[in-house]
Amino acid sequence: KTLEDILKEKGVITAEEYAEANKNKSLVSYQPGKGIVAESADGNYRAQIGGYAQLLYTFTDFDSQAKDDTSDFNIRRFKLQLQGNLVSKKFGYKFQGDMKNGFTTEDAFINYEFAAPFTLQFGQFKPAQARQELTSASRQLFPERSLANDTFNLGRDLGIEASGDIAGKLLEYRVGLFSGNGPNTSNPDNHHMLAGRLDFNPLGEYKMDEAGWPSDKPKLNLGVSSAWSKISEADVAGNFNRDNDVMDVALNLDGLTAANFTTSFGNDLTWLLWTTNLNATWMGISFASEYYHLNADPDLGDDWNADGYYVQAGYQLIPSKLELGVRYSAIESDDSTASAKFDKSQIQGGVNYYFVKHNAKLQADFTHVDDDLVADNDDNIFRLQAQFSY
Amino acid sequence: KTLEDILKEKGVITAEEYAEANKNKSLVSYQPGKGIVAESADGNYRAQIGGYAQLLYTFTDFDSQAKDDTSDFNIRRFKLQLQGNLVSKKFGYKFQGDMKNGFTTEDAFINYEFAAPFTLQFGQFKPAQARQELTSASRQLFPERSLANDTFNLGRDLGIEASGDIAGKLLEYRVGLFSGNGPNTSNPDNHHMLAGRLDFNPLGEYKMDEAGWPSDKPKLNLGVSSAWSKISEADVAGNFNRDNDVMDVALNLDGLTAANFTTSFGNDLTWLLWTTNLNATWMGISFASEYYHLNADPDLGDDWNADGYYVQAGYQLIPSKLELGVRYSAIESDDSTASAKFDKSQIQGGVNYYFVKHNAKLQADFTHVDDDLVADNDDNIFRLQAQFSY
Amino acid sequence: KTLEDILKEKGVITAEEYAEANKNKSLVSYQPGKGIVAESADGNYRAQIGGYAQLLYTFTDFDSQAKDDTSDFNIRRFKLQLQGNLVSKKFGYKFQGDMKNGFTTEDAFINYEFAAPFTLQFGQFKPAQARQELTSASRQLFPERSLANDTFNLGRDLGIEASGDIAGKLLEYRVGLFSGNGPNTSNPDNHHMLAGRLDFNPLGEYKMDEAGWPSDKPKLNLGVSSAWSKISEADVAGNFNRDNDVMDVALNLDGLTAANFTTSFGNDLTWLLWTTNLNATWMGISFASEYYHLNADPDLGDDWNADGYYVQAGYQLIPSKLELGVRYSAIESDDSTASAKFDKSQIQGGVNYYFVKHNAKLQADFTHVDDDLVADNDDNIFRLQAQFSY
Repeated sequence: KTLEDILKEKGVITAEEYAEANKNKSLVSYQPGKGIVAESADGNYRAQIGGYAQLLYTFTDFDSQAKDDTSDFNIRRFKLQLQGNLVSKKFGYKFQGDMKNGFTTEDAFINYEFAAPFTLQFGQFKPAQARQELTSASRQLFPERSLANDTFNLGRDLGIEASGDIAGKLLEYRVGLFSGNGPNTSNPDNHHMLAGRLDFNPLGEYKMDEAGWPSDKPKLNLGVSSAWSKISEADVAGNFNRDNDVMDVALNLDGLTAANFTTSFGNDLTWLLWTTNLNATWMGISFASEYYHLNADPDLGDDWNADGYYVQAGYQLIPSKLELGVRYSAIESDDSTASAKFDKSQIQGGVNYYFVKHNAKLQADFTHVDDDLVADNDDNIFRLQAQFSY
Repeated sequence: KTLEDILKEKGVITAEEYAEANKNKSLVSYQPGKGIVAESADGNYRAQIGGYAQLLYTFTDFDSQAKDDTSDFNIRRFKLQLQGNLVSKKFGYKFQGDMKNGFTTEDAFINYEFAAPFTLQFGQFKPAQARQELTSASRQLFPERSLANDTFNLGRDLGIEASGDIAGKLLEYRVGLFSGNGPNTSNPDNHHMLAGRLDFNPLGEYKMDEAGWPSDKPKLNLGVSSAWSKISEADVAGNFNRDNDVMDVALNLDGLTAANFTTSFGNDLTWLLWTTNLNATWMGISFASEYYHLNADPDLGDDWNADGYYVQAGYQLIPSKLELGVRYSAIESDDSTASAKFDKSQIQGGVNYYFVKHNAKLQADFTHVDDDLVADNDDNIFRLQAQFSY
Repeated sequence: KTLEDILKEKGVITAEEYAEANKNKSLVSYQPGKGIVAESADGNYRAQIGGYAQLLYTFTDFDSQAKDDTSDFNIRRFKLQLQGNLVSKKFGYKFQGDMKNGFTTEDAFINYEFAAPFTLQFGQFKPAQARQELTSASRQLFPERSLANDTFNLGRDLGIEASGDIAGKLLEYRVGLFSGNGPNTSNPDNHHMLAGRLDFNPLGEYKMDEAGWPSDKPKLNLGVSSAWSKISEADVAGNFNRDNDVMDVALNLDGLTAANFTTSFGNDLTWLLWTTNLNATWMGISFASEYYHLNADPDLGDDWNADGYYVQAGYQLIPSKLELGVRYSAIESDDSTASAKFDKSQIQGGVNYYFVKHNAKLQADFTHVDDDLVADNDDNIFRLQAQFSY
C-alpha cells in the first residue's frame, strides 16, 4: 500500500483527492529485470533504462597441435536498453546497443498496435526467423546458441514488419520486408528480403524462453519460418553486414569479391530458408528442437542445399535454482556447387544456477565439436558465464 | 495538485511542514520531449536523460542507367542526450551522442551564465553559423536540411564561445574561437577558426524551429553570421573531421593530400564565409530564406567564390497537425581556380503530420535534383521519416 | 524530514503504516556526484546512472623548430557510469564507458562480498598496480597523471581478483589473475598476468584521492604492488590493447611484429613490475611519492631494467577551494638490450580551484619536459581543465 492508499483508507483524503494526488506523484522506480522505469500517470508515456550483461570465461582445448589452447576472459554482452511507449500505450519503441567493446547499434524501432491481431513495426530488429535466434540471448538454456543456429540465422535487419496474434496467442504471425543486407548498412539496390513466421501454441501462450520453469500446465509450441532474398553483385560489393549468418557463414558470400560473385554465380543468387521447430515444457522439463533448410539458386550453374538442426533438453533438478541441459547440433553442406562446404556436429552438456531467474544466473557448459571435413579440428570448449540484469 | 498540496489545504500539515516535505520528496519524473528529469529541491542540480530518433525510408530513382535505383531503410538519427545544471542554475552542461550506427560524440560542453547578456560556453558544439544548421535536425520543415546548408555548414567544432541576448531577445549574439578542424579531432597547429552571429528579432523571441505553429502574433528574424579560418598543410595532413562541410564539400579539401595542398595553394588558404537569413512565421505560415557566400583565398594563385541559398515556405492546413512545405535550393562554384566545382539545384515538396509537435511526427517529401555539371545526374528522391522523442 | 516522517510524528499514520508507505514509495533521486540513483525499499537493488567529464585546453610550445606549436581544445574524458547492486547488497556491478570520441568500454565487472576481508571480482577493470593509476582520473592533484605512471601502468585488463581489508582498513589486499593483453581483447594463448597489491594504512582508511582536504587527523598510506607476465609471439601477433603501458610504452612491444619479437627475444619475454608508494595528508597538505621498477627477461639475450618515479606535494591555501601543487617525475631505461630506451623528466606546477570538491573544479598546470636522449625535445605545456560530475 502506498501513502496515498493509506490516507484514503483512513479518510484523511477523499477518493477524488486520492485520484488527483496519484496523478501528480512521481512515477519513477527501480524494477528488477527492467531497470529504471518512469511513467506518466495515465501510462501514455513510459521510459525504461536498463539492460543485461554476460561476463564469460572460456577455455578452449584445440585439437590441432599447431594452436595454443586459450584461456580467455571476455565481456560477452553488455546491453543498454531504452524502451517504452509514447503518446499512447499502443505506440511503442525500443533501442538496444551492445557496449561490450565499443558500441554496436542493435535494435532501433517503433511499432504501433492498430489492433491485437495487427501491429506494424518499422526500423532495425530481428526479422521473423528461427525460434532460437528470436529468443533473447539472455533466455537460452546454454551460454551460447546452437551450432545450427549460428550458421543459419538472419541476425538483425532494417525494414518493416506486420505481426499479431489470434485467439489469445493460440496463433501468432509475423511477416516483413527488409533491406536484406544486415543491420547498420544501406541497401545498394532495390532488392528486398522477405521473412515470415507462424507460431502455433495449442496449450496457450508460449514465451520465448528456453528454461524449464516449474509449472503444472504443459506448454507446446510448433513454429515454421521462411525467408527469401535475391543477392546481386551490388550487395556483395556493398559489404552486407556479417550479422546475417545465412549470407556470411552458410553461403560464405563474405569470402567473395563482387567480381568473383559474378564469375561464379552470374547476375544473382536467390536463397530460400525454411526453419521449423517443436518446443515443449512441463514441470521443470524443457525440450526444444529446430530444423534449418537452405536452398541457394544461382543464375549460373546448379542450385544446392545446406541443412542443420539441434535437439536439446533441460531439467530443473531444484526448481528455479539448478538446471541441467544436453544438446546435439549438426550442420551439413556437401553439394559440389556449394559456395561453402561443411559437415560438423556439436555435443554439449550444461549446468545453470539461477539466483533470480534470468535476472541473475550462472551458466557453465562443456562442448565437444566434431569436424568431419577438417582433420585435427575436434575441439573441446569449457564455458562459465555470469549473467545479470541491471 | 500533489499529495502535499492537498494535505496543506486540508490543514493536515502546516505550511512549514509542507515546505519541509517538498524539500525531501523525490523530484524525478518523466517529461514528454525531455525524458527522465531528476532535480534537487532547490533546482541547483538537474539531470535529464532522453533523446530523439528518426527512422527513415528512402527511394532514390537515379537518372543514370548505370546505377540501380535504391530502396533503403535507415536509422537516420538516434540521439542520447544527457543535460542539466549543477551547483547552480547558471552552470549548465550538455552531452549528445548519436547511437544510430555505433556511437558518434556530438555535443559535449559546459556553460556559465555570468549575466543574461553574457554566457561563456566551453567544449564541443556547433559554432555560430547559418540558422538552418543551428536549428536542431528535429525541428526542420523537411526530413533533411537544404542542399545549400549541406554544402556550407561548419558542423560541430571544439572551442569557446561568448553569447547573450539584449532587451528580451530583441538582439542575440554569439562569437567564438574554435580549433577549426571539426569535432573529435585535435588541432595540429595554433591556428583557430573564428565564428560569430547576430540575430535581430524585432517582434520578440524567435525560437530555432522551422515549423509554422498556429499563433496570432507574427514573428520575424533577421540574422547574419560569419566565420573565418586559415588552413595549412598541417590541417590537411591532420585529417580534419568531415563534419565541417565548408572544408569537406565546398572546398573539397578532403580530396587533397597534404603535398597536393601545398603544390596547389602554397603555405595556406584563408576562407571567409558569410550567411544571412530572413525567417518569418504567422498563423500557421512559416517562411525561411538564407544565403551563403564563401570566399577562398590561397597563398598561391587567385581567390575564388562559391555561393548557395534556399527559400522555403510551409503552411499548416490543419493547425499543429498537417503541414505542407515547398523549398528551392541552389549551389554554385564555377571560378576557374576553385578546388571544387558545382552547379546544382534542388526542388522539394513535403507533407508533415504531427502527433505531438516535434515529439512525435511523420514527414514525407519528394525531391528533384538538377545537376548542371554532370550529365545523367538529375535524380528523384522520395523520403518518409518517423520522428519521436523518448 | 519526508512527508511520511511528518505524518507519523503528527499521528496521522501509525508506525506500521509508516513502514508500509516507505516500502512502496519511489526511491529515485538525483544525488550530486552520483547521478540518478534508484533503489528498492530494502536496498537489495540499486541502480545509479551518472558520470564525470573533463574538458581540456592545452597549449604546447614545442622545442623543435620543425613542429608548429599547438593550441588545442579537447574533450579529455566524458564517462558514462552505470553501477549498483542487485539481489543483495553484497552483489555489486559497475559499467564505465568513455564517450569522449566514439565509445570505449572501460570497466565492466561484477563482484560478490563473501565477507569484509574477501570479495571476488570478475570482468574488466584495473588490476592491482601503482596507486596513482588506481586513483580515479577525477581525483588527481594535476590534470594528468605523472610521466612515470604513464610509462609503467597496466591500464585495464580482463580477469578475476580477490580483495579485502583487515582491521578496519588498516591493511588492504588485492590479488588477481588476468588475460594480460589489455581490455577489450581476447587472450590468444593460455598465459596469464598476475597482479597483487598491499596497502598499509596505520592511521586508518586512506581513500584513493590525491587532493589535500582539510582534516585535523593525519593520514598515511604505504603501498606495494607487483605484476608479472610472460609474453609470447602470439600476444604480439594478437595485438594486445595499448592500454597496458608497461607493454606498450615501457617495453615498446607495440613497435614490434610477431616475427621481430621472436628474432629479438626468442620464445617469450617475462616481465616483472614492482611499485611502492608513500602517501600522506594533513591539514590541507597532501604528499605522494611512488617508485616503479620494471625487469624484462627475454628467452634470448640479457635481461634489462627500467625505472621511474614521481614526488608531488599540494597545499590548500583556501581549504576546499584553492590548492597549489608541485611535482617532479622521471623515467629511465638505458640498458643496451632494452627494447625501448628513454631518459626523461618532467617538472610541474599547478593550481586547482574547487567549486564542490571533485564534483566541479578547474585545474591548471604548467609542465616542462626534459628529454636527455632526443635533442630539441624539451617542450613546455600549459593545461586548463574543467571537470564536473553529472
